[in-house]
Amino acid sequence: MLRKRFSREVSELMKDFSSSIEADKEMLLDDIWGSQAHVIMLSKQGIIECKDAKNILKALETLREYCIQGRFELDPALEDVHMNLERFVVKEVGENVGGRMHTARSRNDQVVTDTRMKLRVHILGIEESLFDLEKTLIRIAEKSTEKIMPGYTHTQQAQPITLAYWATAYVSMLSRDAKRLKNSYISVNKSPLGACALAGTSFQTDRRFTAKLLGFDDTVEHALDAVSSRDFIVETLAALSILMSNLSRLSGELILYSTIEYGIVEPGEGYTTGSSIMPQKKNPDAAELVRGLTGHVYGALIQSLTILKSLPLGYNRDLQEDRVLLWNCLKRVNTALQVLAGMLSSSKFKEDRMLELAGRGFSTATELANYLTEEGMPFRKAHELTSRVVGELHRKGRDFRDFEHTMGVLEKHRIKVDGRVLKDILDPGRAVERSRSLGCTSPNEVKRLIKAFRRGMTESESDLRKRKNKLKKAREHTDKLIRELLG
Amino acid sequence: MLRKRFSREVSELMKDFSSSIEADKEMLLDDIWGSQAHVIMLSKQGIIECKDAKNILKALETLREYCIQGRFELDPALEDVHMNLERFVVKEVGENVGGRMHTARSRNDQVVTDTRMKLRVHILGIEESLFDLEKTLIRIAEKSTEKIMPGYTHTQQAQPITLAYWATAYVSMLSRDAKRLKNSYISVNKSPLGACALAGTSFQTDRRFTAKLLGFDDTVEHALDAVSSRDFIVETLAALSILMSNLSRLSGELILYSTIEYGIVEPGEGYTTGSSIMPQKKNPDAAELVRGLTGHVYGALIQSLTILKSLPLGYNRDLQEDRVLLWNCLKRVNTALQVLAGMLSSSKFKEDRMLELAGRGFSTATELANYLTEEGMPFRKAHELTSRVVGELHRKGRDFRDFEHTMGVLEKHRIKVDGRVLKDILDPGRAVERSRSLGCTSPNEVKRLIKAFRRGMTESESDLRKRKNKLKKAREHTDKLIRELLG
Amino acid sequence: MLRKRFSREVSELMKDFSSSIEADKEMLLDDIWGSQAHVIMLSKQGIIECKDAKNILKALETLREYCIQGRFELDPALEDVHMNLERFVVKEVGENVGGRMHTARSRNDQVVTDTRMKLRVHILGIEESLFDLEKTLIRIAEKSTEKIMPGYTHTQQAQPITLAYWATAYVSMLSRDAKRLKNSYISVNKSPLGACALAGTSFQTDRRFTAKLLGFDDTVEHALDAVSSRDFIVETLAALSILMSNLSRLSGELILYSTIEYGIVEPGEGYTTGSSIMPQKKNPDAAELVRGLTGHVYGALIQSLTILKSLPLGYNRDLQEDRVLLWNCLKRVNTALQVLAGMLSSSKFKEDRMLELAGRGFSTATELANYLTEEGMPFRKAHELTSRVVGELHRKGRDFRDFEHTMGVLEKHRIKVDGRVLKDILDPGRAVERSRSLGCTSPNEVKRLIKAFRRGMTESESDLRKRKNKLKKAREHTDKLIRELLG
Amino acid sequence: MLRKRFSREVSELMKDFSSSIEADKEMLLDDIWGSQAHVIMLSKQGIIECKDAKNILKALETLREYCIQGRFELDPALEDVHMNLERFVVKEVGENVGGRMHTARSRNDQVVTDTRMKLRVHILGIEESLFDLEKTLIRIAEKSTEKIMPGYTHTQQAQPITLAYWATAYVSMLSRDAKRLKNSYISVNKSPLGACALAGTSFQTDRRFTAKLLGFDDTVEHALDAVSSRDFIVETLAALSILMSNLSRLSGELILYSTIEYGIVEPGEGYTTGSSIMPQKKNPDAAELVRGLTGHVYGALIQSLTILKSLPLGYNRDLQEDRVLLWNCLKRVNTALQVLAGMLSSSKFKEDRMLELAGRGFSTATELANYLTEEGMPFRKAHELTSRVVGELHRKGRDFRDFEHTMGVLEKHRIKVDGRVLKDILDPGRAVERSRSLGCTSPNEVKRLIKAFRRGMTESESDLRKRKNKLKKAREHTDKLIRELLG
Repeated sequence: MLRKRFSREVSELMKDFSSSIEADKEMLLDDIWGSQAHVIMLSKQGIIECKDAKNILKALETLREYCIQGRFELDPALEDVHMNLERFVVKEVGENVGGRMHTARSRNDQVVTDTRMKLRVHILGIEESLFDLEKTLIRIAEKSTEKIMPGYTHTQQAQPITLAYWATAYVSMLSRDAKRLKNSYISVNKSPLGACALAGTSFQTDRRFTAKLLGFDDTVEHALDAVSSRDFIVETLAALSILMSNLSRLSGELILYSTIEYGIVEPGEGYTTGSSIMPQKKNPDAAELVRGLTGHVYGALIQSLTILKSLPLGYNRDLQEDRVLLWNCLKRVNTALQVLAGMLSSSKFKEDRMLELAGRGFSTATELANYLTEEGMPFRKAHELTSRVVGELHRKGRDFRDFEHTMGVLEKHRIKVDGRVLKDILDPGRAVERSRSLGCTSPNEVKRLIKAFRRGMTESESDLRKRKNKLKKAREHTDKLIRELLG
Repeated sequence: MLRKRFSREVSELMKDFSSSIEADKEMLLDDIWGSQAHVIMLSKQGIIECKDAKNILKALETLREYCIQGRFELDPALEDVHMNLERFVVKEVGENVGGRMHTARSRNDQVVTDTRMKLRVHILGIEESLFDLEKTLIRIAEKSTEKIMPGYTHTQQAQPITLAYWATAYVSMLSRDAKRLKNSYISVNKSPLGACALAGTSFQTDRRFTAKLLGFDDTVEHALDAVSSRDFIVETLAALSILMSNLSRLSGELILYSTIEYGIVEPGEGYTTGSSIMPQKKNPDAAELVRGLTGHVYGALIQSLTILKSLPLGYNRDLQEDRVLLWNCLKRVNTALQVLAGMLSSSKFKEDRMLELAGRGFSTATELANYLTEEGMPFRKAHELTSRVVGELHRKGRDFRDFEHTMGVLEKHRIKVDGRVLKDILDPGRAVERSRSLGCTSPNEVKRLIKAFRRGMTESESDLRKRKNKLKKAREHTDKLIRELLG
Repeated sequence: MLRKRFSREVSELMKDFSSSIEADKEMLLDDIWGSQAHVIMLSKQGIIECKDAKNILKALETLREYCIQGRFELDPALEDVHMNLERFVVKEVGENVGGRMHTARSRNDQVVTDTRMKLRVHILGIEESLFDLEKTLIRIAEKSTEKIMPGYTHTQQAQPITLAYWATAYVSMLSRDAKRLKNSYISVNKSPLGACALAGTSFQTDRRFTAKLLGFDDTVEHALDAVSSRDFIVETLAALSILMSNLSRLSGELILYSTIEYGIVEPGEGYTTGSSIMPQKKNPDAAELVRGLTGHVYGALIQSLTILKSLPLGYNRDLQEDRVLLWNCLKRVNTALQVLAGMLSSSKFKEDRMLELAGRGFSTATELANYLTEEGMPFRKAHELTSRVVGELHRKGRDFRDFEHTMGVLEKHRIKVDGRVLKDILDPGRAVERSRSLGCTSPNEVKRLIKAFRRGMTESESDLRKRKNKLKKAREHTDKLIRELLG
Repeated sequence: MLRKRFSREVSELMKDFSSSIEADKEMLLDDIWGSQAHVIMLSKQGIIECKDAKNILKALETLREYCIQGRFELDPALEDVHMNLERFVVKEVGENVGGRMHTARSRNDQVVTDTRMKLRVHILGIEESLFDLEKTLIRIAEKSTEKIMPGYTHTQQAQPITLAYWATAYVSMLSRDAKRLKNSYISVNKSPLGACALAGTSFQTDRRFTAKLLGFDDTVEHALDAVSSRDFIVETLAALSILMSNLSRLSGELILYSTIEYGIVEPGEGYTTGSSIMPQKKNPDAAELVRGLTGHVYGALIQSLTILKSLPLGYNRDLQEDRVLLWNCLKRVNTALQVLAGMLSSSKFKEDRMLELAGRGFSTATELANYLTEEGMPFRKAHELTSRVVGELHRKGRDFRDFEHTMGVLEKHRIKVDGRVLKDILDPGRAVERSRSLGCTSPNEVKRLIKAFRRGMTESESDLRKRKNKLKKAREHTDKLIRELLG
């Protein structure tokens, strides 16, 4: 085996424990692309001869096809994906030629190159699904700028809002997640290839050339930093953790709103399940699973931070553990976004029930206090007086829907309000309409917000497309160079 | 499908997202055993007829054999392991009979029963490997109660100790991990079976009977608690996290001691690897991987705690996520223990180098201060004086090995010590011998500690054997009852 | 200054950064007690002279009184609590005598002794508050074994239970927390005193004597382990994290049940607050704060685990950080328990509303399926049929409260049930009564559970009292010895 | 009290538990500034009368002066900082006027405004200290581009590098931390003021005006999002966690390099401490404390993520817990950066020892293999051959410093290298000089990197200054408007 200084037997136990095949196999195509770019560069720079480069590239193309067809099996005995690839090439073209492929690189820069290449594709996919979720929420909002529902603070009814307002709150939150993911992408998409073991090399390589061939936006120049750092992974997991915290809030509210007690949402059937024992159940499983996934992503974040804690510079084998959770984590977050979008767009929001609830909890009390303030009473006094009125009604088991009674209590406290005015004040729908501050719940303002969100998303999606395109073009350019070389 | 209230299509996306097959397949044999015990009980209590019980048990035995032979494939379309099992039985004996197996239970109690059964076996395995690691350390200690090495605080040389002392420190630490794991085992090995969905059942079941059949030590009586709680998982992961924190310290020190700079340890070759680019490398990969694994286990702990945070009582689908990391985590911790034991027992500890280092760093300065104290000087003054002597030697690039010089400096500070006495004081080996407090580094005391550790381990191992035996006997008893029933 | 090898200036910045005064000041009385025991032992063993011991003990007694009266101010310039104490003694009795107090110990064993002494008292306090919370829940349960409420799974109504059943579920969960806390106490209450810097000492100390004087149950014998390990802190924080996960569930449910939508709980006013802008609000702040505290405790757990990750053996200054969150964490968990107990006992549970809700969500559908099973139908078929019935009713906007309609739908599906029998089946109260499995929700079974919990608590509280008493006696014994020595 | 709906007594326990005074007191000046801006806006918009505005502003100015002079004591009975401020104003100008200050805002938007204002200042401070640390490292690098030291992978010697290369690796890493912190700043510095309770208000406020007055770069428009979200805190803590992971690596290496075994670094005395018992100790406490702090910041990150997990939208009291760790965390990270900079700039790096070590560990073996490759041998073969040579030397206890012996072994393996060439190949210094890939360790390349880092920092620092200036100007503008109004 290649990894030995002496004639030694790696313990059987250790073979299994140290194998990264499981986590690495996802990066096989990236490893091939990286190797192709490396070999083209070696040839261009005259570090290996053109004919050797050709033969290696031919072998790599064969392997690539095998992989795409699912015909290539990784041999765990060869420890990792890099050695599997090299062994294949050596078998195809002999050690004398194949053995030159690894000139001027190391597994240390190779593995982090692959990881960045795989990770960037995952991020692009998640960004795409995130935009779909945002658009689903916007579609819901567009249809509901006048649908009244209770707004909550402390999980208690506070003031009336609209369904559109609730939905756009999440759009607003998720748009920041999209920004963080894009920032992560920028951090990820830099080339460490050519850093070699830790200190660069005496060969006259062209690192910017390989970086460009592989679709990277930039190069991580400092070689020791390039092989030692995994902050780009932590940064991505931190962005995903915040995203999941937002999704867990959305899921949690959907679960709440689907209860008989709230009765606001009827989730689409494709996203619920029944019970093996209770025949009446229709459980919002999709939302529960998304909420549960939050733990997984927080856990992955802590894992990656723990690994880096006081780790000396240079590659350390600890870093291998980093990828164990990563791919699964990314896939599941992506699916979670799609599942939530599907659940939301197949859900029914029950207008009547929302309106009824909004009328119940004194949610327009602030309106009354505001009215009194506008009539000249200091806010604090108006607030106190309204408090007393509400308290009295509540103790009698009444609320604002009981108009006559409310009038009576107001009069008792010497508050004179014209009946028609009062009706207007206490009506949740009118409260929503009256609001007029920037970013408030009024239909007009929400429509303005929706337009702004749409505009922002158009820009973001165009940027996403550009980044995807760049990767596609880079792959095509590599293929073209290979054809030219082989041709 | 069984899970539906209405004629609904579960979304394709959701099928994949909600499937727990991957994590559950490990529990298939446990699910079968649990079902066998449940059916025997139902028949004993007259809840189902004897002939139906027989047929179901026959089908379950068939399935069990298939599983052991690796001939049973779980169908992901059936969502989870429980439905796969039920479907198999129904196919074998018809719905009219097979449909009775699920009487008086629910997937809610079933899944947590399986999880506890699987988890307890994993804990037993980890305990066993932990004892092996402890014994490896003890064997090292037994051969090295007089091998002097530097003892460190703040990673700086502090006082001389012996290799046996270093090794037994870890035995002492790990023995507490063993205790925590045993406490976890006790928390885990309780039967929730028969709790049904959340509130028990109107059938006259015998929960204590199934608990006994399945080798549980006790019953989680309160049904709502039984299906809602996963504290036994968190408790286990907390115990494992602490264990890993200790293993990360041991690994970290092995990595340190294997450097050229320390040169204390030469790790066994089976546990190191070379480099793909640097031919001279012999890296302590085994220890690095164990240290990296720490992050994985901390992450799993945070995952399980996050899932439980403010989760309402009753089964929630979030709980499914709990198992995603669990099995892999347990397996890798078990292997990590074995790998460390292997690495340690194949390592060479370099006596000469350890002794040489111990002589260098003024590590017997405390001895000098203590001597002066014994001669009547207050400790603080003796401490200060010794400090000054050390400082002066250090500035001149000397240390205690330079005896003449040391004498000179002492005399300059008017400290009169007889030459022979001083040699004795400054000799690391003699310092170790002189120590005589409880738990100190002297050979005699360490031999006493080793005996005590051996004694403790004998007890613990006997207890472990009893627990393993109990499970074996429980399985045999179930088999016997099945044979009797099948006649 | 005492800590210097050379004449050096500690940077101003560093002084502030490295000071542990803030976290340590809570341990001052423990440091005094530890020093008293140490000096008594030194004198008993003849390591220091009796008259010196007397003088030091006199000074320590003076200091102790100052502390109790709040008259002693720690000087941050002296870095930590130990140096403040020593400096005081030296000032009182001169360096020649006071300088002998530190013989045969080190700050390394001293600080961990103090930490264990302080921590054990905190745990005792938390155990006590936990028992109070359990008793509050039991009192609620005792009054409500027949008060019907909906039981939930997936936050959806599942089966009827009683309020007593809900309350006792938490008692059952918390009783395990109590056990974990007691296990932590056992791990904590061991004496590291006399381990000295890391390797013991050549003085003939009596570590078991000081351990006993200080009320410890046992000695951490291995000195290197004694000064290096903080697993007892992690173990305690893990127990507290699990406890908090349970409290967050209880808090979350109280918040839910206090909404207008659920309307099950009216929290006591002393535990809610209003709004500065919405006059009608009555927010369940107490429960929200407890839920929020969960994050703090999880955070402290991760902090302590992170600190230990790959830390070399021996005391390292990193360990100082461990205590930064600890004391605040412990105090707030203790208060959280009391606040929850107060909130619960001042809350009103609304019987009528609970019963009304329980009638709504088809929560007795399982009963119907069970009935059909008992009448001979296989469970799966009964389950399916009931599902269809429920689906049909739901689509028509009806539920089981609509008896005639329900009968009609059943007949349509050719299910013949006698009217009186059906009423009995569909009645939530009767469902609860009918349940008869171990640990089920029936009044009789819950009464049995309550008795068992009461019995368990009596034992636990008696054990707690014994432990508290032991500490008190130990302090008194120390005082007695001091008095005798001082004559 | 203002917060009550009914005549209720807040429980004593609860008062203490729910008080946020401790965490809030740091935000008092921000709360005043926010209130001033709010009142100016209310007056400008005609929502309150000009004379009322004047009186309130006068009172606020008085309070501001008191605060700056440290003469204002917060009353814990008033629960939070906002109520303390309002009470002061009401006392000064009467309720009829003071009661109007709270018009069109809520504590929900107020508290998050204050938090953002305080947080941004902390981030600016940390950025500044981070730049200082980078500059310290650059200064070290500038003096050491030709100082050879061993480069490590797997903590094993790998290839020779220079001290400048080691130092600039950290500059490269930290420059990304600076970028993340700046991104956090952008996320933080947005105004939620005017969002009111959750839905905006019917008053015609001008939120953009207050945002500008308070130096915010932008407005969080959606009111529900503005009061519910704390992602800006998590994002900041994530950036700090990654920063700390990098600092823990730097600290860890400094600790390692300060050991006698490595002997590379002699830390400045102001940043080390001695021992209370071992007179010779000189411990790298500063680095240990920084490393330990890592746990604190990771813990704070997990705390904030836990709090947000599945929290319903709208303000919830849980969010109060977020600030408990925040301020302390930020202060300590800032100090940690300064302490590390101080420690580094006062440390001596021992040139001779570094060079000696670099010659020992076969660190130029790659050079030999590369040479053979350049001479035509395939890399893999050259690698294998070199491996064998190294193995043979190692077994004989030799290394490359033993030139004759090395020649002999090479010849034995039929490798012919001219003696002078071989000397050149095996010389660590020459290896460093020969390297020429982008970002490699050669003096010229490192000088180029240093220039690039300097350039990048100049830009970043100028950007930082602009942001600081903007806040200063905003404060001055507010003062000017107040003066004009009070006129």
